[in-house]
Amino acid sequence: MPALDLAFSALADPTRRALVHRLSRGPARVTDLAAPFPISLAAVSKHLKVLERARLVRRVRAGREFHLALRAAPLREVARWTARYQRFWTARLDALEAFLGKE
Amino acid sequence: MPALDLAFSALADPTRRALVHRLSRGPARVTDLAAPFPISLAAVSKHLKVLERARLVRRVRAGREFHLALRAAPLREVARWTARYQRFWTARLDALEAFLGKE
Repeated sequence: MPALDLAFSALADPTRRALVHRLSRGPARVTDLAAPFPISLAAVSKHLKVLERARLVRRVRAGREFHLALRAAPLREVARWTARYQRFWTARLDALEAFLGKE
Repeated sequence: MPALDLAFSALADPTRRALVHRLSRGPARVTDLAAPFPISLAAVSKHLKVLERARLVRRVRAGREFHLALRAAPLREVARWTARYQRFWTARLDALEAFLGKE
């Protein structure tokens, strides 16, 4: 599956987006990542697997244990794809504002 | 389902991203949208339904027929969510560059 498909698909879930948000502050162990969520450790692990498959997260060895770390590249690709349409939505919102101004 | 879930999920498909790209240039009829794709009109219509459900596309009446038009808001929300991590990937890529420079 193309990288962009996997990244968009992985981000289509609020728990996975929250995990990305948490990991943007630095690497963490699965147990620490799971603690604030009202779901089981197994459920969090499953979400992390989806993020790993989309290459949004990688496993890094830290002594005798593993940490999860965010990967920059797929996030940047999603941002790049979306930014192409910034001109579109700026124009639309300007038009809306102009219309409301006339009302 | 939250709007952001629906938007990310709808964009996790290359045909749907291509349809968004086409519609960013202006509204179009389903048949015109479908023409460049190597899939059936029915398949394109299904993809458009997914985009409509995610509120990325809306149907507008144009005389006796309907056109599809892109909607700005969900695209902007996806861009906003992703832009929060720009600082993260800029830092990562700067670190990588510094590391490669030392090698």
